[in-house]
Amino acid sequence: MADAILVDGEWQAHLPADDRGLAYGDGVFRTLRVEAGEPVAWGVHLQRLAHDCGRLFLPVPDKKQLADDVDRLFSGGHSGVVKIMITRGSGGRGYTPPLEGSRRIVSAHPLPEDSDRQSPLILTCSPVILGQQARLAGVKHLNRLEQVLAREECRRAGTEDAVMCDHEDRVICTTMRNLLFVSAEGEWLTPALTRAGIIGATRQRLTSALSAAGVAVHETDIARSQLQTFRGAVACNSVGGVRSVVQIDGCVFPDSEKACEYARKLLI
Amino acid sequence: MADAILVDGEWQAHLPADDRGLAYGDGVFRTLRVEAGEPVAWGVHLQRLAHDCGRLFLPVPDKKQLADDVDRLFSGGHSGVVKIMITRGSGGRGYTPPLEGSRRIVSAHPLPEDSDRQSPLILTCSPVILGQQARLAGVKHLNRLEQVLAREECRRAGTEDAVMCDHEDRVICTTMRNLLFVSAEGEWLTPALTRAGIIGATRQRLTSALSAAGVAVHETDIARSQLQTFRGAVACNSVGGVRSVVQIDGCVFPDSEKACEYARKLLI
Repeated sequence: MADAILVDGEWQAHLPADDRGLAYGDGVFRTLRVEAGEPVAWGVHLQRLAHDCGRLFLPVPDKKQLADDVDRLFSGGHSGVVKIMITRGSGGRGYTPPLEGSRRIVSAHPLPEDSDRQSPLILTCSPVILGQQARLAGVKHLNRLEQVLAREECRRAGTEDAVMCDHEDRVICTTMRNLLFVSAEGEWLTPALTRAGIIGATRQRLTSALSAAGVAVHETDIARSQLQTFRGAVACNSVGGVRSVVQIDGCVFPDSEKACEYARKLLI
Repeated sequence: MADAILVDGEWQAHLPADDRGLAYGDGVFRTLRVEAGEPVAWGVHLQRLAHDCGRLFLPVPDKKQLADDVDRLFSGGHSGVVKIMITRGSGGRGYTPPLEGSRRIVSAHPLPEDSDRQSPLILTCSPVILGQQARLAGVKHLNRLEQVLAREECRRAGTEDAVMCDHEDRVICTTMRNLLFVSAEGEWLTPALTRAGIIGATRQRLTSALSAAGVAVHETDIARSQLQTFRGAVACNSVGGVRSVVQIDGCVFPDSEKACEYARKLLI
């Protein structure tokens, strides 16, 4: 399947060069799986998208238009990945955002080769340290150079992923996944994403599903030095699902496979 | 004059929707003044552009192609603003940067109405705090949401500009200008931009010109609490030139006008 793109509902491979998404990364996005024409966890993605638009005082996109876009892109009932970008649209030069306007870019992509890989991850901490920005933390916005730099380091090192920490050595996420841990007491924890990191839809689904199963997930600061105390770790995103993390920087988590199996079952 | 755009040397108002500048802010830019067809401080801008491309391991753009683009955009010998963006070009979905490829977007814009304003600036510190990211500090990259948020705060407050500090209360820059200060001893200082901020071409020209005139400029950490000890302050960028800053957060700088006049003369 070749990539296909709808810009504001029109089949377009191009968009205006004065788009503020290009000029300043002034916009947000989501990436999700489509299975036999059906977007997975659509409601959660819409909710996160609306939340993120609100954080950047962007107009919340129309749900029906978005659903129509996805329907048209996957009309053959095939599977793949859909990416939704909402930018502030065309705007004059200068950082000041226009009061109105946005642009909706929805594109279909093939599933990546490794999207169904289930092997455990053995990770180290990335040399790229995440900056702290409370105003943008949690938001899946278009300013992603830190992730680009971190992925380039992964490419050079030949590693599948890496853990990202902030300047105060708190564990935040990986270059493309959220992290959850299981403590020695059997408690589930996940990094608080109030200073850095992206709140992924799968992280939200997983914490909700765990809660519903009577397992509270503690969103909290997690120091890198705490890693050695954990028994289990999983990493998740919307395209690749849940993966077990059996090691970070040499700290071994013996219960990761079990935690991963449990998490996967909750998401079915 | 309407905005005119060249994409890789072709007259285009559009660019491919899969550009990584849009997807991740994966690129750099410069904005400069053109006077009667001649770009101002062209050499310094080219040097900074090449430096910034190097920082993001982007190919350094061809100088002759860039000069040709500017010539074509300003062929009537008119004045205005030229913006140069170098992105990593089209790339697949996913943060990992392709090993090759880039896109050159050069656009002409009218001079903003306030570009020749010379009135002194009275500033306060922005509520938007700059994140620290040593890997990107100094670089004029396309991840500019912090500036968008800070300009939005200026718009709401009805202020022309605001000073931006980092999380450790160091003064870094304004939302769109570099800052230089004059101490009680008559020394010139400017914030070190090793953790945050953009190294503007005019800052570079001004520090070089001051040096050449026998006045050393100390690039150093400047705490917000130090502001009250200064006698003078100026702010500069490539479109608006040098402006005096007579007050920041109530700290009055009595020698700013004198410092500003001196700086302006050095740049002629």
